[in-house]
Amino acid sequence: MLIHSASQLLTLAGGPQRGRDLGTLGIIEKGAVLMRDEKIVVVGTSAELKSAYPDEPSLDATGCVVMPGFVDPHTHVIWGGDRANEFAMKMAGAKYLDILAAGGGIISTVRATRTASIESLIAQTRPRLLRMFAHGTTTAEAKTGYGLQTATELRLLKALLALDDESPLDLAITFLGAHAIAPEFKDDPQGYTDLVCDTMLPMLKGWWETHAPELALPFVDVFCENRAFDLEQSRQILTRARSLGFPLKIHADEFDNIGGASLAVDLGAASADHLVKTSDADIAALGKSDTVAVALPCTPFGLAEKDYTPAQKLLDANAILALATDCNPGTSWNESMQFAIALSCRYMGLTPAQAIAASTINSAHAIRRSDRIGSLEAGKQADLLILSIPDYRHLGYRYGTNLVKQVIKRGRVYSVDVGYYRTA
Amino acid sequence: MLIHSASQLLTLAGGPQRGRDLGTLGIIEKGAVLMRDEKIVVVGTSAELKSAYPDEPSLDATGCVVMPGFVDPHTHVIWGGDRANEFAMKMAGAKYLDILAAGGGIISTVRATRTASIESLIAQTRPRLLRMFAHGTTTAEAKTGYGLQTATELRLLKALLALDDESPLDLAITFLGAHAIAPEFKDDPQGYTDLVCDTMLPMLKGWWETHAPELALPFVDVFCENRAFDLEQSRQILTRARSLGFPLKIHADEFDNIGGASLAVDLGAASADHLVKTSDADIAALGKSDTVAVALPCTPFGLAEKDYTPAQKLLDANAILALATDCNPGTSWNESMQFAIALSCRYMGLTPAQAIAASTINSAHAIRRSDRIGSLEAGKQADLLILSIPDYRHLGYRYGTNLVKQVIKRGRVYSVDVGYYRTA
Repeated sequence: MLIHSASQLLTLAGGPQRGRDLGTLGIIEKGAVLMRDEKIVVVGTSAELKSAYPDEPSLDATGCVVMPGFVDPHTHVIWGGDRANEFAMKMAGAKYLDILAAGGGIISTVRATRTASIESLIAQTRPRLLRMFAHGTTTAEAKTGYGLQTATELRLLKALLALDDESPLDLAITFLGAHAIAPEFKDDPQGYTDLVCDTMLPMLKGWWETHAPELALPFVDVFCENRAFDLEQSRQILTRARSLGFPLKIHADEFDNIGGASLAVDLGAASADHLVKTSDADIAALGKSDTVAVALPCTPFGLAEKDYTPAQKLLDANAILALATDCNPGTSWNESMQFAIALSCRYMGLTPAQAIAASTINSAHAIRRSDRIGSLEAGKQADLLILSIPDYRHLGYRYGTNLVKQVIKRGRVYSVDVGYYRTA
Repeated sequence: MLIHSASQLLTLAGGPQRGRDLGTLGIIEKGAVLMRDEKIVVVGTSAELKSAYPDEPSLDATGCVVMPGFVDPHTHVIWGGDRANEFAMKMAGAKYLDILAAGGGIISTVRATRTASIESLIAQTRPRLLRMFAHGTTTAEAKTGYGLQTATELRLLKALLALDDESPLDLAITFLGAHAIAPEFKDDPQGYTDLVCDTMLPMLKGWWETHAPELALPFVDVFCENRAFDLEQSRQILTRARSLGFPLKIHADEFDNIGGASLAVDLGAASADHLVKTSDADIAALGKSDTVAVALPCTPFGLAEKDYTPAQKLLDANAILALATDCNPGTSWNESMQFAIALSCRYMGLTPAQAIAASTINSAHAIRRSDRIGSLEAGKQADLLILSIPDYRHLGYRYGTNLVKQVIKRGRVYSVDVGYYRTA
């Protein structure tokens, strides 16, 4: 199939974009892309491709931007229950860690997740993945982490594998048994750390190699923060994971700077995520590494906090910056990367072009898939979007609604209906 | 038709909600509503209504919130062109009034609007109204104001009347010839003020009575602000409009406090809108009046400004508070009242219940239609929403996507597709 006549086709070609190179869109006016067998065959102008492939079935993208599908590299999309009842409490001034200390917050989601069957977890998560896909996310990272006990964490993994199978969007799965100290270990964080290292990780390795041998090992992630896993416990977990062959991620510097970002760099993690309170030394370390700095602007927005990831400092330090939704039931129930882009422009000072690169090729690199997705180049997976806008700068400029018209996933075309139809 | 089994049916019964009474939802669990001939016949529990109307065609709302359609009482939804190119400039630090002074900003939209045909204006505006409706707005106020010359302002009025006719949502039309000083009068604001008073308003009155005699007169609005219409010019325009029989609105205190809110109260305006820099004296005046205080939280969000309408002070002063999108091409291209609600919780300290009342019964009062719409009560227009959420507090808590499942307008059911379907 030939998609042609795009007012702007954004290739994002050339690999992850470091530092001040961020925002190189590779715009082709009147652009076209030829797809066959789930892959991109060639990208060029409509004149060139229509002439070279005159008999190809075609899709007219006149007046539209065509670009790679969004890659959302940080989500906690699988959970049980909701926390609507805590929302008013937060808006009245309670802080995340206060709620956590009061036994609410994440622990209430852990309770609802532990008591949910795998069928229920799949049924609750499915509409969130549908919303992601309808808003243009063609690949999403998805973390476990609301189990905090071996059996439930394994149930979450199985549910994610089933959802990856049934959903049009692809999932990159992450094991986050170290999301918080399990309630049974609240006075013994080291005991829970040891459980993760000595029981969960080896179990995960064996289970995965038996049940999903065709898939690469999942990421292992840890929430490195005061009142969660301290720097040494984080190092213990990630070092053990690395020795077992798992690729790594980290939650660092959401509330306090305790060294998680530099730990991620030291261990060669794929990404360090949040990075709100990150020190200049940690920023410098990220800038000299291949560890992607993943900003989650929806999280401070969700909490009405004023501090966002210092994107300008990260770019000045030559870091590889990416964006993600952090979709989760506590701080940021938002499935749309378009909204993360709108926030990053306003509160991190990104241009629309920078935000788009951070949401495609760079976010693909944060899940180590930039060789396959994140740009429109020959040989890559045919994951792309047709947006109902004539200029890419409408992303960021406009917000609150969905600008996607069609999602193409592995060469298949899905229409997204932003409208309505009369039914009675 | 009987809609039944709603997990929560929000009636919002009892009229506009003043001061700390804001947020009275009138929740009926397992609620039901019977509609006939575009009107609501009765509201109650599903058990009562199913028993009383056993043969009525029915629509099952199990697991869903049912509530009145949103009323968006302040939009500039009709314009030509876009300002995506100015967006990066603003994000780099330029201020609205700087852009205005540089000949950009609103004046660039005025140029694009003046040169657009009525057919083009209708075609450009139609998808915005569709987005509004799909996001649950069943009635929207819509202002002229990007013409700033008699012929174009009249073309905008005609286009809005045509859109009101063709669209499922209802429009409440406002004449805003006094949106800015027309470029031809940039050194003679008083000259433009006189043109509005002596030519435009009498022309509008005569034209409306000839061409739309069955409709009530539109609102007349003025942008009362430094570098736009000063307090005396605003008083001149609104007084003239009132003498001709027009109901009134005002833009006040977006950037500076020059007395517009008290002027609105003095003249019995239906609403005073923006109210960011409003003085305590002006807030007190609003609190003693029937002039609705309309907050537009998307405007500071769009500009990444930190000051929002001081909702708590307005509620303490006993004002009638409403929310609107302010949908416009410069500061806030967002069609979704759900997003205005999400912002009002985070940045104005509203609870979800308060934000919902401010977006339905109170916003209906801001366009003086609270006798017909804004609540689910016998005899009112059957304008309601079925939301894909089990608890009203998901409004505000969740953001970035559309939570509407079905829109019922004058008793007709429209399905909203948040998902996607494979087309090739």
